[in-house]
Amino acid sequence: MNSNKAETHWKNKLHEIIYEADTPAGKFFDIILLILIVLSIIFVMLESVKGLPQSTYDLLYYAEWIITIFFSLEYIARIVSIKKPSNYIFSFYGIIDFLSTIPLYLSFFFTGYHALLTVRALRLLRVFRILKISRYIGEANKLSTAIKNSRAKISVFLFAVIVLCIILGTIVYLVEGEESGFKNIPVSVYWCIVTMTTVGYGDIAPVTPAGQFIAALIMILGYGIIAVPTGIVSAEYSQHSKKVHLNTQSCHNCNENNHQDGAKFCHNCGESLYNE
Amino acid sequence: MNSNKAETHWKNKLHEIIYEADTPAGKFFDIILLILIVLSIIFVMLESVKGLPQSTYDLLYYAEWIITIFFSLEYIARIVSIKKPSNYIFSFYGIIDFLSTIPLYLSFFFTGYHALLTVRALRLLRVFRILKISRYIGEANKLSTAIKNSRAKISVFLFAVIVLCIILGTIVYLVEGEESGFKNIPVSVYWCIVTMTTVGYGDIAPVTPAGQFIAALIMILGYGIIAVPTGIVSAEYSQHSKKVHLNTQSCHNCNENNHQDGAKFCHNCGESLYNE
Amino acid sequence: MNSNKAETHWKNKLHEIIYEADTPAGKFFDIILLILIVLSIIFVMLESVKGLPQSTYDLLYYAEWIITIFFSLEYIARIVSIKKPSNYIFSFYGIIDFLSTIPLYLSFFFTGYHALLTVRALRLLRVFRILKISRYIGEANKLSTAIKNSRAKISVFLFAVIVLCIILGTIVYLVEGEESGFKNIPVSVYWCIVTMTTVGYGDIAPVTPAGQFIAALIMILGYGIIAVPTGIVSAEYSQHSKKVHLNTQSCHNCNENNHQDGAKFCHNCGESLYNE
Amino acid sequence: MNSNKAETHWKNKLHEIIYEADTPAGKFFDIILLILIVLSIIFVMLESVKGLPQSTYDLLYYAEWIITIFFSLEYIARIVSIKKPSNYIFSFYGIIDFLSTIPLYLSFFFTGYHALLTVRALRLLRVFRILKISRYIGEANKLSTAIKNSRAKISVFLFAVIVLCIILGTIVYLVEGEESGFKNIPVSVYWCIVTMTTVGYGDIAPVTPAGQFIAALIMILGYGIIAVPTGIVSAEYSQHSKKVHLNTQSCHNCNENNHQDGAKFCHNCGESLYNE
Repeated sequence: MNSNKAETHWKNKLHEIIYEADTPAGKFFDIILLILIVLSIIFVMLESVKGLPQSTYDLLYYAEWIITIFFSLEYIARIVSIKKPSNYIFSFYGIIDFLSTIPLYLSFFFTGYHALLTVRALRLLRVFRILKISRYIGEANKLSTAIKNSRAKISVFLFAVIVLCIILGTIVYLVEGEESGFKNIPVSVYWCIVTMTTVGYGDIAPVTPAGQFIAALIMILGYGIIAVPTGIVSAEYSQHSKKVHLNTQSCHNCNENNHQDGAKFCHNCGESLYNE
Repeated sequence: MNSNKAETHWKNKLHEIIYEADTPAGKFFDIILLILIVLSIIFVMLESVKGLPQSTYDLLYYAEWIITIFFSLEYIARIVSIKKPSNYIFSFYGIIDFLSTIPLYLSFFFTGYHALLTVRALRLLRVFRILKISRYIGEANKLSTAIKNSRAKISVFLFAVIVLCIILGTIVYLVEGEESGFKNIPVSVYWCIVTMTTVGYGDIAPVTPAGQFIAALIMILGYGIIAVPTGIVSAEYSQHSKKVHLNTQSCHNCNENNHQDGAKFCHNCGESLYNE
Repeated sequence: MNSNKAETHWKNKLHEIIYEADTPAGKFFDIILLILIVLSIIFVMLESVKGLPQSTYDLLYYAEWIITIFFSLEYIARIVSIKKPSNYIFSFYGIIDFLSTIPLYLSFFFTGYHALLTVRALRLLRVFRILKISRYIGEANKLSTAIKNSRAKISVFLFAVIVLCIILGTIVYLVEGEESGFKNIPVSVYWCIVTMTTVGYGDIAPVTPAGQFIAALIMILGYGIIAVPTGIVSAEYSQHSKKVHLNTQSCHNCNENNHQDGAKFCHNCGESLYNE
Repeated sequence: MNSNKAETHWKNKLHEIIYEADTPAGKFFDIILLILIVLSIIFVMLESVKGLPQSTYDLLYYAEWIITIFFSLEYIARIVSIKKPSNYIFSFYGIIDFLSTIPLYLSFFFTGYHALLTVRALRLLRVFRILKISRYIGEANKLSTAIKNSRAKISVFLFAVIVLCIILGTIVYLVEGEESGFKNIPVSVYWCIVTMTTVGYGDIAPVTPAGQFIAALIMILGYGIIAVPTGIVSAEYSQHSKKVHLNTQSCHNCNENNHQDGAKFCHNCGESLYNE
């Protein structure tokens, strides 16, 4: 019973360090992790660059192995320190952690799956978990709340934009014809999206007066309706700018985050958030 | 009289299914319709793509006939189930439904009018009618109210932008001359709209220092005044964000939509909205 | 004295028709004028298009003369019907009217000044005067008030953007060098404005990794700070959205517009706004 | 003691002229400085233009020496007139003043460091100091307060945008491959930033249907989320639009600016702001 308690204590300690950020050790762990993730992403990006000296590629290869082994140990520690490992393994971040760690091992056994290695770029998503440590958490929560609340409105707006682009793209396809680069309707719709969103690559551009006239209408439309999502988020943002969560606690049992400030028990499973 | 009543009952049932979305059958019908419209649009788009195997074109041809026959039956059912068919036939959606169904039949009798088939893309507009089923109806109504209320302001703004573009486009035509791609005033005005709306294709771009200076002014102007429509819609949106209609009832008599929540009689013709 | 009074009456009548828009005759005159201005602009634009049949150019030439003679008569009528002609002649619209009417006469006496004819495009500015007739006058006043009030803020913002573009453009000039198209600092600054305002022609684009990195920073900066003018106008717009002038009266004596709703005397010179 | 007092009086006078702008002499000095800075920047930009006649380069060279000598004298006067010179020398503007004045002297002794001369473009930053004279100071303070307050939120937003761009850029790199211009992951990420921020150069553009589909998604995303920073600054701006500082006094002792309106003593060191 005593050894069990010691184990629990040790696990709680590890949970505190790995999952939370309100102890010096927890903060230090998160900062190390953040640096390794950023380094690792830079390495993945550099690997894809052609024409560097061979010694650089060798260096990147060894650095990648060191980082992958660290991430593997971290993955195991995350499983060990939680009460219900399945809560972590099948969570969003659990899957990201697994997917971004495994490719290097697979590439060791199977050759020719180099593209698979790029899955490691998913590691970058992990930085959002670490953002808990920063003083920016309040702002991030406010932002994500504003976006979440205006999701339905923005979906409706973007849906209308897409419908509009399909219809206008089809019209321009008929007007411009295939010799102007409007090869088929999907390409015309792609061009219409490029124009409506004011991106304007110029790889495809109307050349007939009628096509240019319609294009001008699409641009002015796109320039005018960009106001709509802005108005939505503006209204939503100023409305919800008061409710902020700054609690960095994470439940030992079910791994739930986003607890109310000053909460003592998990709002999901009732487990105490603090070790007695 | 009795058979008449039975017929009325049967018509009301059909009206409920086809025009409304608050019964399981009505919802199911709308979902089927939505899927068919989306499929049909994908087929129309794919048809325009060159270089696919002949079997694909054959498949698209047969699929198109099946969908067109379904839409034809739906069109007839819509006419039959309504009390005053002319209210439907000459309404916006009635015309859209007719125009998007007829081309395939016409192409059967007359050859060489392939472009006509593209009119079927108008079917996409029908999805806006089906949006009634979704939980997004409230948001869509809020959005369209905000846009409708700021229509006058946005018109004035866009009118000023167009006048500005014509004058600035004429100036750049004089400054740059025809050898830089500014062939004539309409093309210069088109370029000015491309620049002012920050689309920036780059198919036409100023090459003289004076032209680039004026272009820089146009860009900064465009970058600055984009704030105006946004401010308009923002103000309008936050003002009108309370009035929302969630009623999906549609009048049996005059086909009027947008009834107040809890309305029992049509605000247009006084007909009861519910079948006794 | 009597003939003087009759003349005054006749002048007041003409003033009412030409300068104001609250009588049927005044509205009709403004609509005719609006149509002629728009036609005239379309003719000026078409004239610049090369490759049309000669008969079209002949038609445009005769149409232009008819419109110019009408505008000349209107110019004379405006001078005659006002009490102090100098108030009109040296006003903004007086100068525009003169400049946009005279070129055709000049081209009659002097040949080889064809570019001068384009000055006629300034006629377009006259439509803003005619907007008085429309129901949009309230919106236009609100808009112009919001823009006028945020002028100082937008000037400061645009000034900061220009300073930023000069410094960043100079840095990219040093980083990219002349072989990438960044020929000199003014061209680099032009490129920086093109990028910062998210226009992005692509006629000049960075090719070195360092240049692309700085360009990416400029883009993200431009994407982020576009929020600033929007915020300014939004705040200004919602604040000043109550004060609207709908009065279309124009003083007979000093030609002042923008009178308060219900004003009986000119707020500038004290003259009565209505004919006794 | 008396000579000391006279010296202090003389120094105070100079401080008043150079550092402040509420006396005619101080305003005049600032306007002269503003003109010289703008001229100097135009000269630095013109110097980089190739193909001008040699006489122009000679003229620019002499003008540059005259301006540099003036700026050197001003730099010395700034050091002399302040009580604690180190407060000025190591301040932001002190360093800018030094860095933008020294290059010409260095180029006199060492040849081949022409690029160094471009550092003079930093002079432009000095105009922000001179803006104190203008009636725009209130607006500039409001703007910079709004931006400062929304810094944390905009950082979080831009961080999320960059993470998104890295992940989406990597996906498009895998989808498009190297023959479409997506040479490596950093270039793909650069392209993704170009697209997301709606700049859209078109130097790199997707050519495969899958790539164009993802590009369309990125554009619509970028078009939608531009609303977020706007909403942030809008809310921040309307909240903080009341607190404005119009005081142009600058402390004689510690050179602190931004004193409250009507302040008599420096809020930083307690020194009197006005000469007795």
